[in-house]
Amino acid sequence: MERHFDAELKELHKEILKMGALAEEAIFKSIEALKNRDKNGAQEVIDTDNRIDELELAIDERCIDLIARYQPMAGDLRFITTGMKINAELERIADLAVDMCQRVLELTDKPLLKPLIDIPKLSNIAQKMVRDSIDSFIKKDVDLAKTIVLSDSQADELRNRVQEELVNDYMARDSSTASRAVPLLLISRHLERICDHATNIAEDVIYMVEAKVVRHHLEELG
Amino acid sequence: MERHFDAELKELHKEILKMGALAEEAIFKSIEALKNRDKNGAQEVIDTDNRIDELELAIDERCIDLIARYQPMAGDLRFITTGMKINAELERIADLAVDMCQRVLELTDKPLLKPLIDIPKLSNIAQKMVRDSIDSFIKKDVDLAKTIVLSDSQADELRNRVQEELVNDYMARDSSTASRAVPLLLISRHLERICDHATNIAEDVIYMVEAKVVRHHLEELG
Repeated sequence: MERHFDAELKELHKEILKMGALAEEAIFKSIEALKNRDKNGAQEVIDTDNRIDELELAIDERCIDLIARYQPMAGDLRFITTGMKINAELERIADLAVDMCQRVLELTDKPLLKPLIDIPKLSNIAQKMVRDSIDSFIKKDVDLAKTIVLSDSQADELRNRVQEELVNDYMARDSSTASRAVPLLLISRHLERICDHATNIAEDVIYMVEAKVVRHHLEELG
Repeated sequence: MERHFDAELKELHKEILKMGALAEEAIFKSIEALKNRDKNGAQEVIDTDNRIDELELAIDERCIDLIARYQPMAGDLRFITTGMKINAELERIADLAVDMCQRVLELTDKPLLKPLIDIPKLSNIAQKMVRDSIDSFIKKDVDLAKTIVLSDSQADELRNRVQEELVNDYMARDSSTASRAVPLLLISRHLERICDHATNIAEDVIYMVEAKVVRHHLEELG
């Protein structure tokens, strides 16, 4: 019984790792499509999102099934319920990649506005935060999780910079840029939201391991 | 034992209802602050968000504790895990109200742009969707839940209309409006995201009751 449970828990690890990899890949492909003004690439991310949705449901079912069949005690139960939360966060991250690709589709028909400011940099941060957050969960690595929570403010700053530049240097100077600047502004917000989801995952990991609430109490980490 | 479990389940109902009421109130107050250019009102929503955060954690703990102590079977287990998900959605809805209030604070220093287009209407839809979604959960009312899922496209349309009007009739005509139009545009997006969260709740309710996946398969509902 115990051995079966451990084997099934390993399967859960694997599926969550896969979910994380798919979400990260979706972010990467979205920004590639943006850089290359690649309509097909953007459409592909939108079209394959259902794979991630299906995996989310499968993971959810596995978690409920694990709880129902093995009635795990405190530590394992908390690992599984945390897995359910992380699963939901990852599905949302993938949805935000779809949102970005919809913005890309809006942009590809219009003349190029200009280089993408700090959007590619913000995307790199987002991808790393997602990858690290899943790592911190699987390895129960609280130190890594804390690093992620602290790095979220970096993403906020970068997003603000992108937004200010688009509003002040483009839209406020030349009204004809509005319809191209707005999608870029939204992409920077989608990326920053992805970082928020990675931060939620990291906070859940810290809570799972330390049974200590850091969520909404960032200052405690400093 | 059975009786204790039922009593504790009732407490869970109550707490989730309270969480829903707080989230709905936060949306209402945000839009009031926007309408009245009320800095203090906006700040109040931001400052009291921690009450909602604390309630979220308390509900989460209650759910895990209920599972660990009573090891409920299929139906009850699914009700509790659905409650955990709904709890997370409500906390995010409240966060989006905080986001809206931050936009309000950005706006109150600047001259009024113009009436708020369809934003108050969108807010009414959002509040109703949140209220109905929690109702559908407590009453396990699948018909109500399906109505919510179907009404989400109405919110999408309204959001698109607000966005197009702000871009085409303001930003693209008069570049000096950009810094005031962008926060309004973002508020319309925050509201639409609130509707998405209410839709997630409704989809979770349908799945809980019918064990049928409607998430990501809207067409089945029509």
